[in-house]
Amino acid sequence: MNDKLKVALLQTKVAKEKEENLEQLSELMERLAPEGADLYTLPEMFNCPYSTGLFPAYAESDGGETWRFCSGLAKKHRVYLSAGSIPERGADGRIYNTAYVFDRKGREIAKHRKAHLFDISITDGQQFKESDTLSSGNEITVFETEFCAMGLCVCYDLRFPELARAMVDRGAKVILVPAAFNMTTGPAHWELLFRQRAVDNQVFMVGTAPARGDRGYISWGHSIATDPWGNVLIQMDEKENALVTELDLSALERVRRELPLLAHRRRDMY
Amino acid sequence: MNDKLKVALLQTKVAKEKEENLEQLSELMERLAPEGADLYTLPEMFNCPYSTGLFPAYAESDGGETWRFCSGLAKKHRVYLSAGSIPERGADGRIYNTAYVFDRKGREIAKHRKAHLFDISITDGQQFKESDTLSSGNEITVFETEFCAMGLCVCYDLRFPELARAMVDRGAKVILVPAAFNMTTGPAHWELLFRQRAVDNQVFMVGTAPARGDRGYISWGHSIATDPWGNVLIQMDEKENALVTELDLSALERVRRELPLLAHRRRDMY
Repeated sequence: MNDKLKVALLQTKVAKEKEENLEQLSELMERLAPEGADLYTLPEMFNCPYSTGLFPAYAESDGGETWRFCSGLAKKHRVYLSAGSIPERGADGRIYNTAYVFDRKGREIAKHRKAHLFDISITDGQQFKESDTLSSGNEITVFETEFCAMGLCVCYDLRFPELARAMVDRGAKVILVPAAFNMTTGPAHWELLFRQRAVDNQVFMVGTAPARGDRGYISWGHSIATDPWGNVLIQMDEKENALVTELDLSALERVRRELPLLAHRRRDMY
Repeated sequence: MNDKLKVALLQTKVAKEKEENLEQLSELMERLAPEGADLYTLPEMFNCPYSTGLFPAYAESDGGETWRFCSGLAKKHRVYLSAGSIPERGADGRIYNTAYVFDRKGREIAKHRKAHLFDISITDGQQFKESDTLSSGNEITVFETEFCAMGLCVCYDLRFPELARAMVDRGAKVILVPAAFNMTTGPAHWELLFRQRAVDNQVFMVGTAPARGDRGYISWGHSIATDPWGNVLIQMDEKENALVTELDLSALERVRRELPLLAHRRRDMY
């Protein structure tokens, strides 16, 4: 089994036009191709401005325009593609914040609907109520790859230690988090959360965020990857960027052997 | 209800002689008395060098010398005293790493036996095997005070998000952690863990460690208090020190109202 996994994080700027958002992916992946990444990761709501009012209009069903476009990119470049998240119109007519993952043949191998909706009201700070237009998923999402099993959740899902734990207990060694923290929660908690989920669960964490825009919901950016000891492998600033980093999966086995946190849990107690 | 809680953290240096360790407490509390702390906190194994070989010889039963001494100090100063931890000889003859808390009348109001034993073997780093001489407790410890309910755990217990969660679900708004991280785990994870448990659970965290010595197990020190937003209220360096900080419990209610993480949990899913 190959234990060196090259991950590309695409911190794209989200434009108002869906087609523009898709086109820039094509260009970016073309440009990065020589670096030989195995897995590309995209931000939360990468094809739609992060605004509850717009989610219904941008929503697509499974197999829709964005889905087909991303599947095609994965197949063309023969890479795994964690296609951030997009507004999904479910068969039930509801709208979800949904992350997809495609394999090297362009097949969908994972789909996660954000399970924790972001409703926040901070005095003199961030206000947002995702549940105005979105419904929540109910599944814990872990999928197999040629490297290892991986977990997938969306942004606010990361706030809940129970979910990361559940993904790890289902075998995840890498957790992918398309996300968009803001100017209140970003500086306060973004890096902390990724590092700590990594340390508690002895997994690699990958968080991919939109670049900062200047209108509406302002993204913190700072796309990040951390190793199972909590070291930050890569972290961007707020600007558009695309970087590749390597996850050495053998480091995970060493950390788990030397400090066997997962084995030391007292499941009889909690 | 009084929502301003003044906490004194005593980062003492642990001497070889038990009596010397107790005497310095007397002096420190006398000296700090004018600051009017409501709660004093002591380090893990504050009366005994941190060495598995010494724990049995220093161990006392409930109501033993150290217990009586600490009960007396709490009563004398009319304060709560989180008497770090000490080696305890249980009625079953086993040795435990046990934390006690006394109220303003010197009555024991909490007792926590470290539930997760610290067995670690890091290549070119820290080696330690607490289970060589210690047995583990099996209880989640939360106790009432005139301010709020508080949780109590010991050092390595902090590594397990399930335990902090369980204390918070039993009402804890402050979690006390006598602890002694080392020169491998301290710089890597000490501050991170306290901040993140605070953020995930929206509680105050107080970690009290021994000052750094120069022999045997080398303590990281860095006694710390964090607020429910993850801000570090106070953090020492490695040297002997005693500082008082104030916890404003109304801040906790505000954080829980503005970002209702605990209410947003999906207990149906995990």
